[in-house]
Amino acid sequence: MIPDEDFIQIQGVPGPTKEEVRCLVMCKARIASKDTVVDVGCGSGGLTLESARKARKVIALDKNPEALELTRQNLQKHGLTPKVQLVEGDALEVLEGIESFDTFLVGGSSGDLPFIIKQGYEKLTKHGRIVVTSILLETRVEAVDTLKELGMTPDVVEITIAKGKITERGTMMLGRNPITIISAVK
Amino acid sequence: MIPDEDFIQIQGVPGPTKEEVRCLVMCKARIASKDTVVDVGCGSGGLTLESARKARKVIALDKNPEALELTRQNLQKHGLTPKVQLVEGDALEVLEGIESFDTFLVGGSSGDLPFIIKQGYEKLTKHGRIVVTSILLETRVEAVDTLKELGMTPDVVEITIAKGKITERGTMMLGRNPITIISAVK
Amino acid sequence: MIPDEDFIQIQGVPGPTKEEVRCLVMCKARIASKDTVVDVGCGSGGLTLESARKARKVIALDKNPEALELTRQNLQKHGLTPKVQLVEGDALEVLEGIESFDTFLVGGSSGDLPFIIKQGYEKLTKHGRIVVTSILLETRVEAVDTLKELGMTPDVVEITIAKGKITERGTMMLGRNPITIISAVK
Amino acid sequence: MIPDEDFIQIQGVPGPTKEEVRCLVMCKARIASKDTVVDVGCGSGGLTLESARKARKVIALDKNPEALELTRQNLQKHGLTPKVQLVEGDALEVLEGIESFDTFLVGGSSGDLPFIIKQGYEKLTKHGRIVVTSILLETRVEAVDTLKELGMTPDVVEITIAKGKITERGTMMLGRNPITIISAVK
Repeated sequence: MIPDEDFIQIQGVPGPTKEEVRCLVMCKARIASKDTVVDVGCGSGGLTLESARKARKVIALDKNPEALELTRQNLQKHGLTPKVQLVEGDALEVLEGIESFDTFLVGGSSGDLPFIIKQGYEKLTKHGRIVVTSILLETRVEAVDTLKELGMTPDVVEITIAKGKITERGTMMLGRNPITIISAVK
Repeated sequence: MIPDEDFIQIQGVPGPTKEEVRCLVMCKARIASKDTVVDVGCGSGGLTLESARKARKVIALDKNPEALELTRQNLQKHGLTPKVQLVEGDALEVLEGIESFDTFLVGGSSGDLPFIIKQGYEKLTKHGRIVVTSILLETRVEAVDTLKELGMTPDVVEITIAKGKITERGTMMLGRNPITIISAVK
Repeated sequence: MIPDEDFIQIQGVPGPTKEEVRCLVMCKARIASKDTVVDVGCGSGGLTLESARKARKVIALDKNPEALELTRQNLQKHGLTPKVQLVEGDALEVLEGIESFDTFLVGGSSGDLPFIIKQGYEKLTKHGRIVVTSILLETRVEAVDTLKELGMTPDVVEITIAKGKITERGTMMLGRNPITIISAVK
Repeated sequence: MIPDEDFIQIQGVPGPTKEEVRCLVMCKARIASKDTVVDVGCGSGGLTLESARKARKVIALDKNPEALELTRQNLQKHGLTPKVQLVEGDALEVLEGIESFDTFLVGGSSGDLPFIIKQGYEKLTKHGRIVVTSILLETRVEAVDTLKELGMTPDVVEITIAKGKITERGTMMLGRNPITIISAVK
């Protein structure tokens, strides 16, 4: 994974997703070198960049033009620009215009989560994977319910990470916000 | 427990210990109304105040005069002043001058933890309890080792808490630093 | 709190709720000595017994006659029988027949959670407290949504506990299932 | 990662390391295709197999002949036999006879952890990585202390995972034992 501190960050755009969480999302996404990935809500580009290191092509969406610009800068910094298409706009509308893809990454904080998952599912190739990352109690359940409704069996993992800070007095354990990863295979 | 926001706080003094952690420390401390409690490293007074609500008498120590002054203010705010004796100074020296007590609360970040535990043990009444709260990897092990050396059987509980923040988008789970409570009965 | 191992247990009835979780539920419930508590889904009686140690009166409900019998045995073992009324039956029906109460404890795994919370709310005295303990993703959200719908502000705490097991090789940390406590004041 | 259920398991040999933990260990290990990996205490072969999928060569050690036999079976099942050398014996002795390597994976429950880390460090190539996985309070501190003593800066991550179990009543969150990963670069 790319170290957290190697991402350009700006105020107003959250992220990047922390190294350990990116690692687990990539683990669940099982991206192959021939795959096309769609990343909904790319933010600082954390998952976009990691996907670009593995996939043939990545399409990254965000409503926020500042997020897309930041993702563009991070891609450039890490030499991953050629593989990635950046699209500004509402996920539901943008998905409409995309053909098919093999991996569907969704940051689960958007209001339209069930619709986004369903529309993504339509475009997903057989054996393709949906991976939702959620920090809200509500979107966890929305993701599980929607995947079940689509006939998929959701894999649900809640991860709580504490990082050690080496100080003179000892190793202080600093908590991170828990994250839930909900994933499924078509 | 006293709500977190009902404590006066000042810069430079950590705390108060969060409501949920105070609750678990009190649970492990099993303070009776006839008990004397010694609280080493009282900080903002979180555990001092909770102990004062249950015990006959509390002796609160801190090296930092600002911490003691803050504890004094918090005691006054909650009408708990009469039960508590505040002592500034090094724990090892202060403990020397105290007779016996029934409960020994130790914030586990001090450098002298093994010595403090041993000296506290000497003054502890039979069936008295030692409760160490630790946020460092190292002091957890020091506490466990010292209690075992003293022939006690340590109860070790690591607690990770996330608090929900109600937002327009949903309930965002915010992580807290994990805390380990190590306790034992004489 | 009563130590976990001091509860009589039988196969087929879950519980008792672990010491640390009982401690936090009691902390959120803030039961006063003049209070009446209703405990829905009493199981082995963990929360019933702790409530009985603090409240004036406890009414414990369960659909399962084995759970009620086990709670009865645990109450007897700890000399808490006189304060507690045991009622077999569906929570919604039983609540109908109860006057008012000050604290409403709900084990959040029942299918009717929103209805149970709403019916409990009706009978709850002003400043009374509802405390829901949930181990399912779905009931956490149901509890938060229902409390919000009733105009209350839910306090949401997710607790993950690991217990140290002292072995020859060292202190092995054993994970417990995470539990979410959702509470609110009327 | 290889799914947990795709490992052959036998009684008396722990493991395999769970998918999510293997994922994070691999993330911290940053194994390149030209690397040689040494895996101390291979158990069921979880980390051996994942390393073999990335590295040029893996040397897997265990004191327990049953563990080595199980790792051999798991390697065969997944077609990874040719890359891996299995060595029975005490880690300190076996390390003596190995030339240099790029990644050093240590299951942190052995009694000789500081010595094993130091001996591994000697044989580690420049920029090589040590990754210790620990489930004991004590070995976490031993690993941190030893890496600091060797002039390295340990990265410490404690991971607590809960897995969702889809049931009729909802998604039950089941806790796993927390694991601490301590890693450093030479």
